[in-house]
Amino acid sequence: KINGDRLWDSLMEMAKIGPGIAGGNNRQTLTDEDAEGRALYKSWCDAAGLTTGVDTMGNMFARREGTDPDALPVYVGSHLDTQPTGGKYDGVLGVLGGLEIIRTLNDLGIKTKHPIVVTNWTNEEGTRYAPAMLASGVFAGKHTEAWAKDRVDADGKRFGDELKRIGWEGDEPAGDRKMHAFFELHIEQGPILEAEGKDIGVVTHGQGLRWIECTVTGKDSHTGSTPMHMRKNAGRGLALITELVHEIAMKNQPNAVGAIGHIEVYPNSRNVIPGKVVFTVDMRTHLLDKLNAMVGEFDERAPKLCEEIGVEFSSEIVGQFDPPAFDETCVTAVRDAAERLGYSHMDIVSGAGHDACWINDVAPTAMVMCPCVDGLSHNEAEEISKDWATAGTDVLMHAVVETAGI
Amino acid sequence: KINGDRLWDSLMEMAKIGPGIAGGNNRQTLTDEDAEGRALYKSWCDAAGLTTGVDTMGNMFARREGTDPDALPVYVGSHLDTQPTGGKYDGVLGVLGGLEIIRTLNDLGIKTKHPIVVTNWTNEEGTRYAPAMLASGVFAGKHTEAWAKDRVDADGKRFGDELKRIGWEGDEPAGDRKMHAFFELHIEQGPILEAEGKDIGVVTHGQGLRWIECTVTGKDSHTGSTPMHMRKNAGRGLALITELVHEIAMKNQPNAVGAIGHIEVYPNSRNVIPGKVVFTVDMRTHLLDKLNAMVGEFDERAPKLCEEIGVEFSSEIVGQFDPPAFDETCVTAVRDAAERLGYSHMDIVSGAGHDACWINDVAPTAMVMCPCVDGLSHNEAEEISKDWATAGTDVLMHAVVETAGI
Ligand SMILES: NC(=O)NCCC(=O)O
Ligand SMILES: NC(=O)NCCC(=O)O
Repeated sequence: KINGDRLWDSLMEMAKIGPGIAGGNNRQTLTDEDAEGRALYKSWCDAAGLTTGVDTMGNMFARREGTDPDALPVYVGSHLDTQPTGGKYDGVLGVLGGLEIIRTLNDLGIKTKHPIVVTNWTNEEGTRYAPAMLASGVFAGKHTEAWAKDRVDADGKRFGDELKRIGWEGDEPAGDRKMHAFFELHIEQGPILEAEGKDIGVVTHGQGLRWIECTVTGKDSHTGSTPMHMRKNAGRGLALITELVHEIAMKNQPNAVGAIGHIEVYPNSRNVIPGKVVFTVDMRTHLLDKLNAMVGEFDERAPKLCEEIGVEFSSEIVGQFDPPAFDETCVTAVRDAAERLGYSHMDIVSGAGHDACWINDVAPTAMVMCPCVDGLSHNEAEEISKDWATAGTDVLMHAVVETAGI
Repeated sequence: KINGDRLWDSLMEMAKIGPGIAGGNNRQTLTDEDAEGRALYKSWCDAAGLTTGVDTMGNMFARREGTDPDALPVYVGSHLDTQPTGGKYDGVLGVLGGLEIIRTLNDLGIKTKHPIVVTNWTNEEGTRYAPAMLASGVFAGKHTEAWAKDRVDADGKRFGDELKRIGWEGDEPAGDRKMHAFFELHIEQGPILEAEGKDIGVVTHGQGLRWIECTVTGKDSHTGSTPMHMRKNAGRGLALITELVHEIAMKNQPNAVGAIGHIEVYPNSRNVIPGKVVFTVDMRTHLLDKLNAMVGEFDERAPKLCEEIGVEFSSEIVGQFDPPAFDETCVTAVRDAAERLGYSHMDIVSGAGHDACWINDVAPTAMVMCPCVDGLSHNEAEEISKDWATAGTDVLMHAVVETAGI
């Protein structure tokens, strides 16, 4: 069993970097805070005797040697970046849980046949740079590195430039590493495990996602002196589409969701009718056909709604992945570990996207989930108990060691 | 008659300060660009032999002496500040038109009985600091100076601090000056004069306004893993209220308007359901009873709409003025001037708020309007012709000289 207190101390230590305003974290990708978090994590990896490498996308790899020189490593990890108002555990638990496995194996003097590599994937959150899971996506060959490095944030800063600026662009070509398997521990970010009173979620599938960046174009003009019939109010396009997205999600229940999280209004002045609004629609469900039907309905109705009120509509997909099904052997390793350790568990579908969803395409992959309070995530008040973190990391360790062999 | 070419050259010269991105201007109040614009304008006032004074709100006064030492001055002017994506004429025409009157009177060697004072009122636009017409409002006793100076912009910077920073806080107590009359020339910012083919709008009334700053509070949480029934999506509150405002304006036709121009979404991340949205509703009409009824309906329905979708609603009035009726003698002076000069004219209600609306409460006041292309304003593409500017300034001069006496 792992050392739950040590794991918790590391989580709390990391949470001091990029503190939020309400007890959580703002350690967005490729910021100074991200660099500081990486440095702290690397110092811990060094102290644990690991060999660290960084690839050209800034993905970090910390390796513990195995006994078989020819064996491919078992990878384990998640991400250290957070939302602008994020929690202390989303992603971080998976990275520091991986490190805790290493520390425990070191303590116990256990050698595995396959090496074990703990990873920190760059820009999982996708909040500063769309899409989410950008660097694991490049690793898995989903995006070209050139395209990824050209992503810009809201201030027009390029991903590639910011990665250089914070000093975490490595030499290793992204995607060169081959994996025996990959395991990711993550908080559920939803309410199911807590409601069902289970310690462990054995993740069998994930939801598919589409991010549709929409631009509604009207005409900025005076809110007072422009008669109603002459207005082209782009804000109304946003309003109608907000409700459309909600309606589409509701009629595809159960297990479908939709919302708009990011909105930019131009010129954003109290007495100017919005001339342009740019926003991203997020739609998800775990069945590919349903997901495509939802997007199909959106693509048909959104332009019509805008046309009816005299504004223009255009859209572009800025993030997408199809619903993944994780590797049966790896999933079984997780389920067996939970069973063996006596933790209550259930099979679950991940509501969020994870680096594991991309890595699943290039290596046998599975995920372990632990509950979070009220299902709340992407919120500074995100909370888990030390017991939940410990149980998840125990299961992670057993699945990893089982797969890496002794 | 005034010198239309000289007026136009000055307009174009001023437009070089704080250029926009599409041919217009971004010279928002109390920015470095505002300071630069003020300095240029003061140099012109100095060259015209005027005595300049600045009050504690940064309002600028440039005085040409009259022949009667006991006569109160006739004031004329508008504002030099612009929207973030504003035009070259909104406000500026009224200030530089006032200056052009002085230059013409100087050229012709005409002395008036009453002194003439050209004013530049601080923060007319209200885009950086709500409410609009802030400093003329303090001058007219509508707001206390302390309250006005405590207004903060979106970055939390205080009006009072920014006024000091740009070096334009004067010594003169705001509101100490007494006026014989006040005249303001302004572009219409609406489509009526152009559509009717009139050179001059004789402004008899203005619309009343209410700015209602609304806060909708939900709960920020994950767009993927939060089930639909557990969501508190503040963005939906914005959507429903956007349409409510539109509906209220439409059912109060003719001559009522409503829209939302300024919106801030928190935390504004693609994969976070908005936990809070703050936005300002702008509603206007020229009848006080109707305006109150519109606001009454809003106040009743907006909280209910939010309650129905499980989010909280609160609101605060951040700007308001009742529909003004301008002074009959001053209005007649404007109408007679247009008639005498042979310009086509019509009576008109101002769709926008103006400094004249506040000054009207402390001095006999009237406004002159000239057309603008397509009624477009609060847009960088705002356009007028040199002929329109010349006609408006001619009428302004004749009304002012008539009132100031020779
Ligand atoms: N786990 C997580 O929140 N990932 C961010 C990508 C997503 O929006 O699902
Ligand atoms: N004239 C003008 O645009 N003033 C700004 C105040 C308003 O919104 O009407």
